[in-house]
Amino acid sequence: MNETVEIGMGRTARRTYGLDDIGIVPSRRTRSSSKVSTSWQIDAYRFEIPLITAACDAVVSPAVATQVGKLGGLGVIDGEGLWARHANPQKVIDGIVALGPDAEATDVLAKLQAAYAEPVSIDLLTEAIGTLRNGGSTVAVRLSPQNAATLAPKAIAAGVEMLIIQGTIVSAEHVQDDGEALNLKSFIADLDVPVIVGGATNYQTATHLMRTGAAGVIVGTGSGSHATTSEVLGISVPMATAIADAAAARRSYLDETGGRYVHVIAAGDLHTSADIAKAIACGADAVMLGEPLTEAKEAPAGGWFWPTTAAHPILPRGFAGPCGFADVPLEQLLLGPAVSADGTSNLFGALRRAMAKSGYSDLKEFQKVGLTVRG
Amino acid sequence: MNETVEIGMGRTARRTYGLDDIGIVPSRRTRSSSKVSTSWQIDAYRFEIPLITAACDAVVSPAVATQVGKLGGLGVIDGEGLWARHANPQKVIDGIVALGPDAEATDVLAKLQAAYAEPVSIDLLTEAIGTLRNGGSTVAVRLSPQNAATLAPKAIAAGVEMLIIQGTIVSAEHVQDDGEALNLKSFIADLDVPVIVGGATNYQTATHLMRTGAAGVIVGTGSGSHATTSEVLGISVPMATAIADAAAARRSYLDETGGRYVHVIAAGDLHTSADIAKAIACGADAVMLGEPLTEAKEAPAGGWFWPTTAAHPILPRGFAGPCGFADVPLEQLLLGPAVSADGTSNLFGALRRAMAKSGYSDLKEFQKVGLTVRG
Amino acid sequence: MNETVEIGMGRTARRTYGLDDIGIVPSRRTRSSSKVSTSWQIDAYRFEIPLITAACDAVVSPAVATQVGKLGGLGVIDGEGLWARHANPQKVIDGIVALGPDAEATDVLAKLQAAYAEPVSIDLLTEAIGTLRNGGSTVAVRLSPQNAATLAPKAIAAGVEMLIIQGTIVSAEHVQDDGEALNLKSFIADLDVPVIVGGATNYQTATHLMRTGAAGVIVGTGSGSHATTSEVLGISVPMATAIADAAAARRSYLDETGGRYVHVIAAGDLHTSADIAKAIACGADAVMLGEPLTEAKEAPAGGWFWPTTAAHPILPRGFAGPCGFADVPLEQLLLGPAVSADGTSNLFGALRRAMAKSGYSDLKEFQKVGLTVRG
Amino acid sequence: MNETVEIGMGRTARRTYGLDDIGIVPSRRTRSSSKVSTSWQIDAYRFEIPLITAACDAVVSPAVATQVGKLGGLGVIDGEGLWARHANPQKVIDGIVALGPDAEATDVLAKLQAAYAEPVSIDLLTEAIGTLRNGGSTVAVRLSPQNAATLAPKAIAAGVEMLIIQGTIVSAEHVQDDGEALNLKSFIADLDVPVIVGGATNYQTATHLMRTGAAGVIVGTGSGSHATTSEVLGISVPMATAIADAAAARRSYLDETGGRYVHVIAAGDLHTSADIAKAIACGADAVMLGEPLTEAKEAPAGGWFWPTTAAHPILPRGFAGPCGFADVPLEQLLLGPAVSADGTSNLFGALRRAMAKSGYSDLKEFQKVGLTVRG
Repeated sequence: MNETVEIGMGRTARRTYGLDDIGIVPSRRTRSSSKVSTSWQIDAYRFEIPLITAACDAVVSPAVATQVGKLGGLGVIDGEGLWARHANPQKVIDGIVALGPDAEATDVLAKLQAAYAEPVSIDLLTEAIGTLRNGGSTVAVRLSPQNAATLAPKAIAAGVEMLIIQGTIVSAEHVQDDGEALNLKSFIADLDVPVIVGGATNYQTATHLMRTGAAGVIVGTGSGSHATTSEVLGISVPMATAIADAAAARRSYLDETGGRYVHVIAAGDLHTSADIAKAIACGADAVMLGEPLTEAKEAPAGGWFWPTTAAHPILPRGFAGPCGFADVPLEQLLLGPAVSADGTSNLFGALRRAMAKSGYSDLKEFQKVGLTVRG
Repeated sequence: MNETVEIGMGRTARRTYGLDDIGIVPSRRTRSSSKVSTSWQIDAYRFEIPLITAACDAVVSPAVATQVGKLGGLGVIDGEGLWARHANPQKVIDGIVALGPDAEATDVLAKLQAAYAEPVSIDLLTEAIGTLRNGGSTVAVRLSPQNAATLAPKAIAAGVEMLIIQGTIVSAEHVQDDGEALNLKSFIADLDVPVIVGGATNYQTATHLMRTGAAGVIVGTGSGSHATTSEVLGISVPMATAIADAAAARRSYLDETGGRYVHVIAAGDLHTSADIAKAIACGADAVMLGEPLTEAKEAPAGGWFWPTTAAHPILPRGFAGPCGFADVPLEQLLLGPAVSADGTSNLFGALRRAMAKSGYSDLKEFQKVGLTVRG
Repeated sequence: MNETVEIGMGRTARRTYGLDDIGIVPSRRTRSSSKVSTSWQIDAYRFEIPLITAACDAVVSPAVATQVGKLGGLGVIDGEGLWARHANPQKVIDGIVALGPDAEATDVLAKLQAAYAEPVSIDLLTEAIGTLRNGGSTVAVRLSPQNAATLAPKAIAAGVEMLIIQGTIVSAEHVQDDGEALNLKSFIADLDVPVIVGGATNYQTATHLMRTGAAGVIVGTGSGSHATTSEVLGISVPMATAIADAAAARRSYLDETGGRYVHVIAAGDLHTSADIAKAIACGADAVMLGEPLTEAKEAPAGGWFWPTTAAHPILPRGFAGPCGFADVPLEQLLLGPAVSADGTSNLFGALRRAMAKSGYSDLKEFQKVGLTVRG
Repeated sequence: MNETVEIGMGRTARRTYGLDDIGIVPSRRTRSSSKVSTSWQIDAYRFEIPLITAACDAVVSPAVATQVGKLGGLGVIDGEGLWARHANPQKVIDGIVALGPDAEATDVLAKLQAAYAEPVSIDLLTEAIGTLRNGGSTVAVRLSPQNAATLAPKAIAAGVEMLIIQGTIVSAEHVQDDGEALNLKSFIADLDVPVIVGGATNYQTATHLMRTGAAGVIVGTGSGSHATTSEVLGISVPMATAIADAAAARRSYLDETGGRYVHVIAAGDLHTSADIAKAIACGADAVMLGEPLTEAKEAPAGGWFWPTTAAHPILPRGFAGPCGFADVPLEQLLLGPAVSADGTSNLFGALRRAMAKSGYSDLKEFQKVGLTVRG
């Protein structure tokens, strides 16, 4: 089917697909779950499950990040989050959540904006990274493209082993109003640690980001039920298409470089274990999860969620509110046994079983599983 | 994809798209919002934001129109609205709203019909235009095709600088039952002020309207959640397609005339800042907003809305009722900062950011941004 | 677009469209409503509006049928309905409605089945037809294919001027278990009155029914919100496609016979004035309305509705319950002014305006208006 | 239409259809219901209705299975269900249901898991089969692929006449972690009774299962409103496509073997009589029903339902809860008269009528009826 449609005379649009639009269809032998591996490796770091946490303060504290590492994933804290702005970030989070589920949205917004209006303190950031380092898991921190040049050296000096440079939409070539924009290529070349960068939304941007020397590229804007990029900006990135496009960029870049494999990390519209399996099936090497972690007992905001953009002072594109139940231990949330049958726990045990039922033994193979879309 | 489908043997229909069906996909560099311009110019008038208000009494009084002008847009009052029919129009509006949100629809309809049954008074119209003129913004008034011939000379004499001739659907060639129909071409040629005319719903009508000498053509029937053209008449104009078609007419007419650029104004299905961005992305030069202005503190009907057709004595095609919260200052509604994350405020700041995230620096360029439709 | 899809290997399905899937798009001049005619003629009978009532006891009594005739349409009573089974049918209807909106569905079903278990009485049928004849409008009665051979002679003797032979699905060639099936062709040839027959659901059946000598063919199973043919049998007839197919059969048959024009009557999924306009736009010559008449003050069941199939003793395919408000005089319901803006009143005034806005002056022309489907 | 879509660059998906997406369209003569046969035969066993019960403890006890046989279908009990694990299974079921409709899902899950944690007892299984045998209907039992090798000989010794080997997804070649996987081909060859095996989800798997020597292949994962394979694993099998594919496999295998006809049993998304008719229309020889039987007065769990997977200790993929009303005698549920008009009773009388209205006289012919999908 021709995937370009003419929406009006002389104006075309591309037909795209979200994870909700697709399904996995087993089409070969089956195998036992125990015969399946969900491990992956990026740079020198190997992980047992293809999970990178979204750097969202509501779900990832340094303690959570450490525990995610122990469970086989990569925990990431927000280097410009509350951990770097407040001496007692948990108290700030508690203050937001104390507004309660029935609070006026404007009141929650005001409180959130106030919390993030405090400046980032290098000392607090260093301290948070120290806590991470003491935890013994891989130390990863997210910075914004705007502040990466300033903050990255300090963060690395403090012990960061992997850097995530992430904005809603990041391009390799940003036109800035004052001063110089971040030159990602030279910036990454100068760093001693692997960098994951994004979000990209299409083949071209993903390719350009791969050419910056990044170890991984994030696909998607981290959209979820609490993010409103689509309602505010009209920008929407159906994830099945975006992931497949980035995987195509990965293949082209692999060929172009004679062998450099840049990992594709899916970030957006990931709610259940089914979504995780579908994201891998579309070509992702790993998934970045935020909202699903609100089910974890250990989540700092006790089940509330807000995306990073929710606190924007001029154009917030997300909101804070109750999301998960925060009543499942993180280990059980990720590795099972499941506490329910709705795909919200045993997230990676379910991935393992989806692979087994479809007859695939590792993630790389599973990226070729048969897909369906609904007629 | 072939965009004509056979709905039955020998009967075809065209596949069309609404703004809800499409998304914007960034595909290049990004830029800072401050490096973006949202200005546009029609005839001798330049505006900082591509906003024309719908001439709806519930949201636009002469005072609101003036303030919209000061904020960079074009405010339009209904020359056949309550301002031209009642000495104290605000009292009439208050009386309608006083029926309350739980009033029987038939009671509201009766009250509305009674209010608009009063004849248009040239004196009152002149007075309203005088108020506008004193306000210092561009003076624009909407008239119906039926009454334009009679009222336009008086309105222009009173100081109108731009005329909007608008009905649900307007064609360049109207067959009337008694007397002569309005000959738009000679009518417009005889006027000293630029004319914007519509709504058109397709390429042919838009082209014919451009040939009347209009400075701008309105695309769409002004449909929204309070208009029911589709439920009553079966006529529906998916706006993404309608806008793209009108933009194609603009290009053809530009070529045909060797350079006359007729502006395309989108009017219909515009609810959020995302819709505004998408309308421009489909090819509109500006948007005509009605319902979204019910969020403004200054809206005369305190959050209620009714389209012009709602008071029709025989076949009403819209209803009056609560729509917005009327609690955001107009300036903040249009230019920010946003009071929420749902795309209902900072409408044009969001447009600016959507352009920036997609890497475009002005409206004309942004009409080429990548679009998606959902599979 | 190829309108056949392969739902699985070697198994195809046809892509079909309902009235909800399509829209009317004006694409030419506009005209005043008063310059539009909605009249049509079948056999020797001319009607000002293209309305045939469904023969549903809940909405059409002999009195209602008479009044519909006076308002320009064709009223039809069910020759096997309560009017032919009970001496005091209104009392029976009142008894059903008295169960109230919260009654158990099984109780309503039982009462309905009991009411229709009474045998048809020739005397009562004759009496009802007499009432109709005295009313002075065209006398039309519906009979089932099963009983037409027996009842038609008596009905015609009693004064019926037009016969409607209607079942859920009727074919020209029915295989029956005992005795001989009705031979429609010889049956119709032997009658002195014009016959309308159906429902047909596709081109072939419609063609065969036209060849029986019928003056009109009903398209559709009369489906509505109270009919459940689709839920019970899996049979669904998207009306836009079904009407267009029947119109194609009409054209072929017209050619085949060198000029015999068989009228296409749309029966199904007609809820609003928009649906009526769309049905004509798809190729119907007239519409058969049941449920929409529950808004009429004169409706015998005071707003309740049940399709004929609802009382089936073994496999009911519809249910009885509240549907409309029964508070609009029939005249206003059909001819306006509208009492609301939702397309449920002034049904044929709205059709007239839809034609006017689209620039068509009669029904036959309007069958060519531009159509859209949503992407 | 090309049924492969490119969801992203270089990544395709197949366009598939569920039973909800399709409709049956009569396109020929009609016939009386009494002229229709719904009988079918598998191996030496002939049935009057194409019904195999799902082996779900909530709806099928040995008593229910016997009665289904007497009504013309095939009742199947779960050989690893509560009947084989508890001396008093009804008491266990009553204990689950006693938790009530408002119980916490986690409490229900725990109770369910505990009930199924009891080991299968050969004695209890033998006893249950004995009860079945005494009932006089065809004796059929379901076993899982994991336990079939161990349990099948005992079950057959106890009197089983037909064996159902069923898991969510079963392939002819399973890769197991410890010990040897079941070799279906040699296993079936060694048995004295016909075997039905599944679920298969596509042409290849269905073909391979047919080659094992099975008498019938189950298509689908038994999905329903209480199963969550799609939410948990991302695996979804739109049934219209899956059935048509399996029917294609049946044709190929028939050709390949010069005449061995393997029956296709549809299991999944079957809620109403309409769904049954559509499944046959897509190519199924019979349907496997679970949830719809919760309407039966005789259902052991009084209207509750849970799929076999609901009690999984690590990754449950379904939940237990109220589903039907358990107030219609089984005979009436299957053969009528219907107690309502929503397609939930007189399930096979409705199938018969759908065939009659479409003009087909037996199931095999009806597999060719015209189908539609909605545009």
